[in-house]
Amino acid sequence: MKLVYTGKTKNVYALDDGNYLLKFKDDCTGADGVFDPGMNTVGLTMEGAGRACIRLTKYFFEILNQKGIPTHYIDADVDNVTMTVRPAKTFGAGLEVICRFRAVGSFYRRYGDYVEEAAPLPAFVETTLKDDDREDPPITKDALGNLGIMTPNEYDKVKALTQQIATIMKDELAKKNTELYDIKFEFGRIGDEIVLIDEISGGNMRAYRDGEYVMPLELEKMILDN
Amino acid sequence: MKLVYTGKTKNVYALDDGNYLLKFKDDCTGADGVFDPGMNTVGLTMEGAGRACIRLTKYFFEILNQKGIPTHYIDADVDNVTMTVRPAKTFGAGLEVICRFRAVGSFYRRYGDYVEEAAPLPAFVETTLKDDDREDPPITKDALGNLGIMTPNEYDKVKALTQQIATIMKDELAKKNTELYDIKFEFGRIGDEIVLIDEISGGNMRAYRDGEYVMPLELEKMILDN
Repeated sequence: MKLVYTGKTKNVYALDDGNYLLKFKDDCTGADGVFDPGMNTVGLTMEGAGRACIRLTKYFFEILNQKGIPTHYIDADVDNVTMTVRPAKTFGAGLEVICRFRAVGSFYRRYGDYVEEAAPLPAFVETTLKDDDREDPPITKDALGNLGIMTPNEYDKVKALTQQIATIMKDELAKKNTELYDIKFEFGRIGDEIVLIDEISGGNMRAYRDGEYVMPLELEKMILDN
Repeated sequence: MKLVYTGKTKNVYALDDGNYLLKFKDDCTGADGVFDPGMNTVGLTMEGAGRACIRLTKYFFEILNQKGIPTHYIDADVDNVTMTVRPAKTFGAGLEVICRFRAVGSFYRRYGDYVEEAAPLPAFVETTLKDDDREDPPITKDALGNLGIMTPNEYDKVKALTQQIATIMKDELAKKNTELYDIKFEFGRIGDEIVLIDEISGGNMRAYRDGEYVMPLELEKMILDN
């Protein structure tokens, strides 16, 4: 088992059968000890964060696989805080695909002149490059095509898949009386197939209950212990 | 003649016949006395800047009108540094449409991991909101539609028109041995018609001769005095 990548919140190992093993850490993105799913830096280490992450990821990926959504997920081992996945290639050095049901976060910061805070959005999709040095710049369908990162046809598939998956996630959260405001995904290619990759945990989404933001570790409890 | 708008580089007056008169100033965008067409602030005042702007704007709009491009331009008075235009409504509080033939400026700053500086681009189009407080945030076709600023159908028209006009501009500059790297336009609606508005001057574009950036006032001389 060979370490092939050391990430901010997990390490990636190559397995002998060609698949990968992801080992989750207890580090969370944020700044100065405050958790922020929108940040690029590791801001704090919370005991149990890795375990919460793998439990939620396992829970959601199994729902998605059952519904026929193409994903990289094979299985997860909660005790060892690991997940086995198929070997997908990222688009460029990684592309984040955000789906928004309400105007909060950077969407509201950018477009506050045209929208009320938390106004409903119709599964609006936008994409940003994973590039810490350039603060994850936003990128359009046309630019992705011009830079050879993703073809226009692939973009349309990724957008449709994102809206489908985000809607499944929204419905799952609604069953627990929690509202999904926005969520970010990452996709990859396995041959010609486009699949959902990475994790699906509290750090990937903004969820609210009774108008109050739900912290990631609380979200895990709300979803899995109710 | 009633002053209806005071801009950074020009004032706008309403005429009795329903048209508008634009009066150009000698102020240029930039910072600390250095001209920068990408900036939002007035950085310096250069004597003759207004006159250079109106001369170039008149020159280019007359070429475009002749080629059947829909614009707001009626005529210009170089001595009085004014231009008469049809009354167009901006998209939202104003939308800048950028067309890029080479990867420089903010495009290169954002996507430098995927493109060489000054690499050719195929009349790539992107849009930013005019919003000084939010530093002109980039915005996608989908977001423009969701926020009610521009319909997807209008976006497609504006994109095609932008590529057509930018190519005309590129050809005009090439006649003067100058290469157009990028250019920004603004469009507006007159009823259902979409027309090119604002000005077309050195401050709207990056032009290079023999690999060297041409300053706006030099550009005026190169285009009009050769």
